[in-house]
Amino acid sequence: MTSPASKYFVTKPDCSRHQIFPGVMINTVAGEKTMISIVELEPRSEVKPHQHPHEQMGYLVSGELTFTIGDETRVVKPGEMWRIPGGVVHGCVAGSEPTLAIDVFNPIREDYR
Amino acid sequence: MTSPASKYFVTKPDCSRHQIFPGVMINTVAGEKTMISIVELEPRSEVKPHQHPHEQMGYLVSGELTFTIGDETRVVKPGEMWRIPGGVVHGCVAGSEPTLAIDVFNPIREDYR
Repeated sequence: MTSPASKYFVTKPDCSRHQIFPGVMINTVAGEKTMISIVELEPRSEVKPHQHPHEQMGYLVSGELTFTIGDETRVVKPGEMWRIPGGVVHGCVAGSEPTLAIDVFNPIREDYR
Repeated sequence: MTSPASKYFVTKPDCSRHQIFPGVMINTVAGEKTMISIVELEPRSEVKPHQHPHEQMGYLVSGELTFTIGDETRVVKPGEMWRIPGGVVHGCVAGSEPTLAIDVFNPIREDYR
């Protein structure tokens, strides 16, 4: 059952939903200056290397990401985080299980509203 | 085993750790304008009503929070989110299990560095 709309509380059905790469869906919600994006990656799906002027930080909820930011590559496990200054090229590949990540953008990515 | 320090990748041991209320520990990491706070709440622990000028958004990873923001109260379940404009009073009480939440602040909370 869907809750009534709220100024303050947000559930996934309230989010804006976008497929950003094959097998990669995002569910976004904007605040005043911050945007949260719930990222659902199918196994082995890939976020191709890209960059944007927005600062991006994130947290891995479940699954695994092989993440490249600038000249560093790490295998990121649940509970680990990333911080990507604006303009730094980054991309990732999901592991063999469905993967769930939280990304945060500042300022808001207008293309993801 | 601790990974070597990275500009871009962050694990919990890299975070700054603060007890903000009895039974409520936070692990924080700052980017340029955004701060992530991993919030660990013991069962029934309480974040007393408070306010700050920083925008705060968050995501519940596990457990349950009875959350009051302004004049709204909701029971928040894993996968659900909140957005709190600067200056709005908010507080929460954890449910009967350990609870894990991600908060995001903009600008950075200097008191949590």
